[in-house]
Amino acid sequence: MTENPPLSPTPRSTVKRGAKRAQTDRAALRDVLDNGLICHLSTVVDGTPLVLPTGYGRDGDTLYLHGSTGARSLRAAASGVEVCVAVTLVDGVVYARSVFHHSMNYRSAVVHGTAVQVSEPREKLHGLRVLTEHLAPGSWDYTREPNPKELAATTVLALDLTEAAVKIRTGGPVDDDEDVSADRGWAGVLPLRQVWGAAESFADHPVPAHVTARATAPTP
Amino acid sequence: MTENPPLSPTPRSTVKRGAKRAQTDRAALRDVLDNGLICHLSTVVDGTPLVLPTGYGRDGDTLYLHGSTGARSLRAAASGVEVCVAVTLVDGVVYARSVFHHSMNYRSAVVHGTAVQVSEPREKLHGLRVLTEHLAPGSWDYTREPNPKELAATTVLALDLTEAAVKIRTGGPVDDDEDVSADRGWAGVLPLRQVWGAAESFADHPVPAHVTARATAPTP
Repeated sequence: MTENPPLSPTPRSTVKRGAKRAQTDRAALRDVLDNGLICHLSTVVDGTPLVLPTGYGRDGDTLYLHGSTGARSLRAAASGVEVCVAVTLVDGVVYARSVFHHSMNYRSAVVHGTAVQVSEPREKLHGLRVLTEHLAPGSWDYTREPNPKELAATTVLALDLTEAAVKIRTGGPVDDDEDVSADRGWAGVLPLRQVWGAAESFADHPVPAHVTARATAPTP
Repeated sequence: MTENPPLSPTPRSTVKRGAKRAQTDRAALRDVLDNGLICHLSTVVDGTPLVLPTGYGRDGDTLYLHGSTGARSLRAAASGVEVCVAVTLVDGVVYARSVFHHSMNYRSAVVHGTAVQVSEPREKLHGLRVLTEHLAPGSWDYTREPNPKELAATTVLALDLTEAAVKIRTGGPVDDDEDVSADRGWAGVLPLRQVWGAAESFADHPVPAHVTARATAPTP
């Protein structure tokens, strides 16, 4: 046992397609989660799948999710059923010499598990802080904290990061030899990244440092 | 009946949270789908949810998905079970005067339905063309088309865009009156967008026009 055990794939979290792109170290998982902004949370509701985008935050090996107490997806996820959470970063489009080998460069994490509703007040507040600092670093201390009514209206879920799969693709196209030999034209990568724009103010105050710092920092 | 019927929400595709952000016209759905690059495809496998990122393409009111014939998610989706597909564009982080009202600006589409495997050769090729032109506009004509072996290794699914929900949030924070009156500091929006980088060449040819045009066009 180590403090940082590798990801332990179960049958459903074992990467089967493109296994050479699978990462098995926990640092890769954390890296993908920390660089994403939203996740896609999937649950089974009335026997059929439901997937919705939502915010998240990570603290150690716990992923926090939250939402309105009335949200269908959160209600389902909080009822002790299995969930699946995906965080995906698209880093570029891979143009190959054949249609078939076109691809994307990406970093992907898929987590399986049973979400636990966080009801202990201090842990709930901690989960909300983690979520807020992921969405808007610096905002927890700068703005008004949740009041009891707001806390009661919010469901916080904790998901253990035990069962997870990470896939990362980087680099150029992987073409068939005969297509490379045929030298039929260009092949390459068109990189894609997310960039922050200039802050838009809705209050007559200077933009605070935690916001300007984010806007000018290099994006992951 | 019209040629462009509005989205007809069923109980599960009716937007319940933030209903004021729900869009019910088909043009909004097409707009979100056409401006996204990947989707998150959710299926139920062995009773538990599975969500994976994948490419897609839209032609009229049909969404095409594809993948390796061996891919677990595609196999599940092709077996005539219900799927749920989400396309999400994050447009910015909304900084409010309270933690509770922090939010995101986004465009989101969630489609429910039963995917149909496309086996008729011409329709399969058409579906792949639609998928390729969504991922890499111009690539279908520029590069080598799929050969019979590649076609056999690829599953193409068609999903009808009948049952779908669209949510769009724009604009500044929506704060409580007392927080606005308290004038406690800055509030605003930090816009986020995706930008293409300069094309990276992996073949000794000039970058073709369909790639340079994309790299320099304004991103959605």
